[in-house]
Amino acid sequence: MGVQEDIQRNDEGIATALGILTQAYGPRVETGLALREQHGHTTTWLRNQPPDAVIFPRSTEEVQGIVRICAAHKVPIIPFGTGTSLEGHVNAPAGGISLDFSQMDAILEVHAEDMDVVIQPGVTRKALNTYLRDTGLFFPIDPGADASLGGMAATRASGTCAVRYGTMKDNVLALKAVLPSGEILKTAARARKTSAGYDLTRLMVGSEGTLGIITELTLKLQGIPEATSAATCSFASLEDASNAVIACFQYGLPVARIELLNALQVRACNAYSKLSLPEAPLLLLEFHGSETGVTEQAELFGEIAADHGGTGFELTVKEEDRAKLWQARHDAYWAALQLRPGAKGISTDVCVPISRLAECVAAAEAKLDELGVMAPIVGHVGDGNFHALLLLDMDNPAEIEVAEGFIGWLNDLAISMDGTCTGEHGIGQGKAKYLERELGTGAMQVMGAIKRGIDPDNIFNPGKLALS
Amino acid sequence: MGVQEDIQRNDEGIATALGILTQAYGPRVETGLALREQHGHTTTWLRNQPPDAVIFPRSTEEVQGIVRICAAHKVPIIPFGTGTSLEGHVNAPAGGISLDFSQMDAILEVHAEDMDVVIQPGVTRKALNTYLRDTGLFFPIDPGADASLGGMAATRASGTCAVRYGTMKDNVLALKAVLPSGEILKTAARARKTSAGYDLTRLMVGSEGTLGIITELTLKLQGIPEATSAATCSFASLEDASNAVIACFQYGLPVARIELLNALQVRACNAYSKLSLPEAPLLLLEFHGSETGVTEQAELFGEIAADHGGTGFELTVKEEDRAKLWQARHDAYWAALQLRPGAKGISTDVCVPISRLAECVAAAEAKLDELGVMAPIVGHVGDGNFHALLLLDMDNPAEIEVAEGFIGWLNDLAISMDGTCTGEHGIGQGKAKYLERELGTGAMQVMGAIKRGIDPDNIFNPGKLALS
Repeated sequence: MGVQEDIQRNDEGIATALGILTQAYGPRVETGLALREQHGHTTTWLRNQPPDAVIFPRSTEEVQGIVRICAAHKVPIIPFGTGTSLEGHVNAPAGGISLDFSQMDAILEVHAEDMDVVIQPGVTRKALNTYLRDTGLFFPIDPGADASLGGMAATRASGTCAVRYGTMKDNVLALKAVLPSGEILKTAARARKTSAGYDLTRLMVGSEGTLGIITELTLKLQGIPEATSAATCSFASLEDASNAVIACFQYGLPVARIELLNALQVRACNAYSKLSLPEAPLLLLEFHGSETGVTEQAELFGEIAADHGGTGFELTVKEEDRAKLWQARHDAYWAALQLRPGAKGISTDVCVPISRLAECVAAAEAKLDELGVMAPIVGHVGDGNFHALLLLDMDNPAEIEVAEGFIGWLNDLAISMDGTCTGEHGIGQGKAKYLERELGTGAMQVMGAIKRGIDPDNIFNPGKLALS
Repeated sequence: MGVQEDIQRNDEGIATALGILTQAYGPRVETGLALREQHGHTTTWLRNQPPDAVIFPRSTEEVQGIVRICAAHKVPIIPFGTGTSLEGHVNAPAGGISLDFSQMDAILEVHAEDMDVVIQPGVTRKALNTYLRDTGLFFPIDPGADASLGGMAATRASGTCAVRYGTMKDNVLALKAVLPSGEILKTAARARKTSAGYDLTRLMVGSEGTLGIITELTLKLQGIPEATSAATCSFASLEDASNAVIACFQYGLPVARIELLNALQVRACNAYSKLSLPEAPLLLLEFHGSETGVTEQAELFGEIAADHGGTGFELTVKEEDRAKLWQARHDAYWAALQLRPGAKGISTDVCVPISRLAECVAAAEAKLDELGVMAPIVGHVGDGNFHALLLLDMDNPAEIEVAEGFIGWLNDLAISMDGTCTGEHGIGQGKAKYLERELGTGAMQVMGAIKRGIDPDNIFNPGKLALS
């Protein structure tokens, strides 16, 4: 946990800016410790580094005003959505102002014919989908938590549906952001496709608040499918399961979700969700399409699974049964925690080429066994991405040390397989030391040049992305 | 045509660098005028600005060597694929070296299980698909010309299949490029998904050679569909056709291609390809999927089309009939030229939200009529992108002036509809003056900061993308 040191604070600038901000925004500048700590990071094992104040802006103009004041005094600004990021993204290692977007949660325009929506960044994904229900449209990215869409864009989130619908990079059509200069950046028009200059939309998506403060998003929407089916199948080995996944893609089977649970995770889900699945690697799939299409697809999966030794294949079209299965998947985290009551769960996030997935998961399982660390595994296997949830006693430094060693080992293993240390959680503070190992000095040079060019005083979310 | 002025030449640096390059690479440094002019721009109406020399590198190391020599003497470098770009991308307004990648055309690795391929940038899309045929996989981006994949990446190309498979931004998994510093940039691992830092892959895709010289691409592949069907249908108006397209998406119909031909273009195709389609707006579709799926989909389209007054619906499953129809679409450019023998065709490229498409195309048709300019229209209507091909006598300055006026008017109209002046052709020299109008000063600031940060001496493709 040696990566989130405090960085040099500009105490004088912070004091001056806070005075001006308090005059300008009065009681909306909050400085209570509890609120500040809640805006430092709480979902990780990284140390909490609270900001000096939290402000709840209500408009793009207010964000511009705050940025200009902070820029004039070189004070850090850290954008905050719902605080569900996992790698210390919202920590304030140099202090400064946390901008909490919970009051900028308006849905501005729904363009049903264009299948897009314009929103403020504080809208959460569940709130958006509730709002959209009557339009027949939905937003497909589901990272598990009910995160804000601004935060999801900033961290390039994805989740279980990415195999069909892509990640945030594929579903943000355009955005507006306030730059460190206080100017507004509009990244793109609302057209579906553009070749107009550098792809600033994709540059901002995943930039973790280090280049601009997102104040508006235009998102692509999907039609709610006419029908949905689910299927489960158990396999003798991770390799068999993984080969079945590869075959699905080669057959062009348009899976909407394809999730792997390892044997330990199945055991946890059985206990927590009152299921009786065989304690063996399990694939859990969902199909979206027409009534006949989704049955046909699930049946084709059944045949593919059988070819790879799959057993206990079950096809579920009934909404109720399907919901139960997927609820169990969504509760996998809570189920896992029950394996070791009182433990905290710390998640890994490597992603490898799918041909290396079985080998990578099996190696992780063996290593965890060898180290005596309990860590059930779930995987977005269509993308080659999986999470081992390390169940740790946070008061035991020896355990933490072993866990850190394991995570480093796994990240390096994934990198050696031409994979990444992070498929969807981001770099933040927690993975800073792996970024250069993964991409090399050229990428670090380019990222540094971009950061310095846009934010020369390093006031936007400093200390993240290995940039300072 | 006032946007491609020469920019300041560094004659001394160019002479010195050429001397060193000739010593290092001998007869592969070509300086003949015909070859140099062929490497300036020939497919547009922009003036040809030839480079001082053309070099044919054979390896990444050679590219690094050439870049280091040019960088030391501040000499421009312009990467060249097949020269099929349309906005003066390969012109050399400040002279310098054209790097022709036709000898870097190796297919390095095919990963069938991962459905990706690693190639050198000089491989053309047809060569790649010929090579892949036996694997059951294909690369779906089809911009018409048999362009090099390096050039397609550099210009963020797309084409008729983008509605289903996306553009180059969606199909480049990772790339390597030589930076102005001579260092190698690796943008990403080979995993399907990543949250590891700024999205440098998407930054390089569409950067038109201004940030790095691409020397390796990792591309996503698709399974060759089990079956393909095609359908055509005529409509009384552009609006009816456009509403049918919108309905297709709302039904979730997974079209692989959906192209619009306006009445004038249909007339041209009838004459050129010996067809007898009604001279009215025509939609031409293709579906990819299972045997039953593609028939079902085409039939569903038939129903949707009928709801919108479509007539003469035809469904084609037979390979031979389908090929004839799509050949006619691919020959639309040649067919159009026959409408006015001796004329040159200059293409517009606006892209608007699909709800505004009919209005935009109809306005363009009316304006062309009013101006007396003959310009058939084809559209990738699933993306809201269409091309009017202006048929011009290039020796008539009055005609050119009218045409330039029209293009500016159309670009501004698209921008006023929250669309873009370029859906797939890029900015290059030709659209430089529209970029700031479309995106505003914030975007120009950011693009300028990125360019200066990575290429402070402005040696990579100077004078493009409105960056200098």
